[in-house]
Amino acid sequence: MTSQTPVTPPAQDTANPLLVEVTRGSQVESRHRAAVAVVDTAGKVVLAAGDTDRPVYPRSAIKSLQAIALVESGAADAFAVSELELALACASHSGEPRHVNAVTAWLARVGLSPADLECGPQLPGYEPALIDLLAGGGAATAAHNNCSGKHSGFLTLARHLGVPTKGYINYEHPVQQRILGVLEAMTGLDLGAAPRGIDGCGIPVIGVPLGNLALAMARLGAPDDQPEARQDACRRLRRAVAAHPFMVAGSGRFDTRVMALTGEKAFIKTGAEGVYCAALPDLGLGVAVKVDDGAGRAAEIIMGRLLAHFGILGAAEVDKLGGLFTAPVTNRAGSTVGEIRPAAQSPF
Amino acid sequence: MTSQTPVTPPAQDTANPLLVEVTRGSQVESRHRAAVAVVDTAGKVVLAAGDTDRPVYPRSAIKSLQAIALVESGAADAFAVSELELALACASHSGEPRHVNAVTAWLARVGLSPADLECGPQLPGYEPALIDLLAGGGAATAAHNNCSGKHSGFLTLARHLGVPTKGYINYEHPVQQRILGVLEAMTGLDLGAAPRGIDGCGIPVIGVPLGNLALAMARLGAPDDQPEARQDACRRLRRAVAAHPFMVAGSGRFDTRVMALTGEKAFIKTGAEGVYCAALPDLGLGVAVKVDDGAGRAAEIIMGRLLAHFGILGAAEVDKLGGLFTAPVTNRAGSTVGEIRPAAQSPF
Repeated sequence: MTSQTPVTPPAQDTANPLLVEVTRGSQVESRHRAAVAVVDTAGKVVLAAGDTDRPVYPRSAIKSLQAIALVESGAADAFAVSELELALACASHSGEPRHVNAVTAWLARVGLSPADLECGPQLPGYEPALIDLLAGGGAATAAHNNCSGKHSGFLTLARHLGVPTKGYINYEHPVQQRILGVLEAMTGLDLGAAPRGIDGCGIPVIGVPLGNLALAMARLGAPDDQPEARQDACRRLRRAVAAHPFMVAGSGRFDTRVMALTGEKAFIKTGAEGVYCAALPDLGLGVAVKVDDGAGRAAEIIMGRLLAHFGILGAAEVDKLGGLFTAPVTNRAGSTVGEIRPAAQSPF
Repeated sequence: MTSQTPVTPPAQDTANPLLVEVTRGSQVESRHRAAVAVVDTAGKVVLAAGDTDRPVYPRSAIKSLQAIALVESGAADAFAVSELELALACASHSGEPRHVNAVTAWLARVGLSPADLECGPQLPGYEPALIDLLAGGGAATAAHNNCSGKHSGFLTLARHLGVPTKGYINYEHPVQQRILGVLEAMTGLDLGAAPRGIDGCGIPVIGVPLGNLALAMARLGAPDDQPEARQDACRRLRRAVAAHPFMVAGSGRFDTRVMALTGEKAFIKTGAEGVYCAALPDLGLGVAVKVDDGAGRAAEIIMGRLLAHFGILGAAEVDKLGGLFTAPVTNRAGSTVGEIRPAAQSPF
């Protein structure tokens, strides 16, 4: 190369730290930058990396906060929503038969059906379930959508409030306004003018600074400063998820495998575009992670390391979960050809 | 947030520039950094962004360079490999019936079958083809693997050389050694001690500095300094791909749609982990792109903008390709909720 016209990043381009690297053979192939906030219930930052003030869309990582409205309103009790169904309300599930059947039964009990779901159709995320569905002549439906449990919760809340179920995904609908109120209380922010968009499943997404997202998760785990009905709702949801970790994700998934071991010691939840949140009730801490580029593979590695760093997972459990903390990269023939691991610069 | 223990990236963590951003509603949700090298056949850098000296694994973006060995050796002629099959040898196809049937017919003519492919099975990347395959009781095979055309080329070369076909994916096999020789000649580097790993399809990947990768692509487009048989091979491969752009990728794919318009003016090829390469023969330029985090969605946006920047695609063609240059982000219901676009800092 004989000459070069380099492009220097402008001054305002402050890079978040490199926290995860993907190797292949003898070198690093890809790199992921991320911001991390770990905060206590008083809002004190216990650990931070990168820009924790930048608003991020929490995506599916706050389904538990959205489900608070379902419980604290009395809707869950009025419609005899089970613990398993509460776990589904907090889920990004893989569309396996157990998920889909449970959603369909729940909707029927509320007097509705998958046709009332406004989340759009999606093929199962778990490949064997996908193959079985299609080989059996089936097709993607809204019940297979990874968000169908959350939407069933929204529909149940709409029925309980006596408002139209149609349009329940819209920002102005009473269901979404109620959820916005919960989100404001838990994050400690007025979100009326916050950045806003539409999620993959059609509902509003609200931009929340990463540190405040961690605060909301801390409060989910230790909601002592919240109204009593909300405290009860937080505890019920945590218990539900700990009792039914399969319902929150599915076969082989990170959330399911980790929570099957941690029980109520950790409520962790993945979100699209590299978001990960956790409530660590025993420590009174909340965690929020956002990978700059949106890669879920990096967010999982970061969450795994944080759980080990804070002692939620001991050495024996890390051993048992093996590949979740330094994940293998495999080729199509199934051989391991690299790994996804914390970057050398990672502080945890 | 009352206090903070920020983590400052260490000095050696030099960030490549932000070139692509993904928006949702009123804010940027995710960000992609990348390095770009555009080089002429003499190795002069015409445009560069970020670190162009760092070795990257070219992955599938150099299937055309690998196919040179198939043609210049005389194997393609000896086995009457058609123009369509040469395009398949350069392909990362979507596993649609036209791809799979052509691969199977090619292998039969060489006296082999998909059972001889060592690339591992893969489900079709094109969802309607995936659904048809599974609904018809079919399953993923090696012929559906996006690399099956490239591997058919390797097998054809092995047959022509009179060496065992078994193990043709190994670094030491004569087929891979011949390809390494072509890669050295085209990149102008001794690659004997280069970083090395195994690709998703089982073959060796060799780390090449991004600038030298661009140089190799410039030479693919204008191979005047190469031996005559190699010059012929480069021209035949470019012609084959321009004549059969569907075979190189598939329905709706970026490579296919762009080359259907550009013909021989541009040979572009995507690779895993955010790599993109292009030869621009009329300009005597080669292009190499590597997105730090491995995101293909960002590499496509960068390649689209570069093609427009260098006048390979005029305003009318950019119009026709629409969403390829600022790609819509859609939700499960099909609504547009954001876009993937060049970052404000992008210099092209």
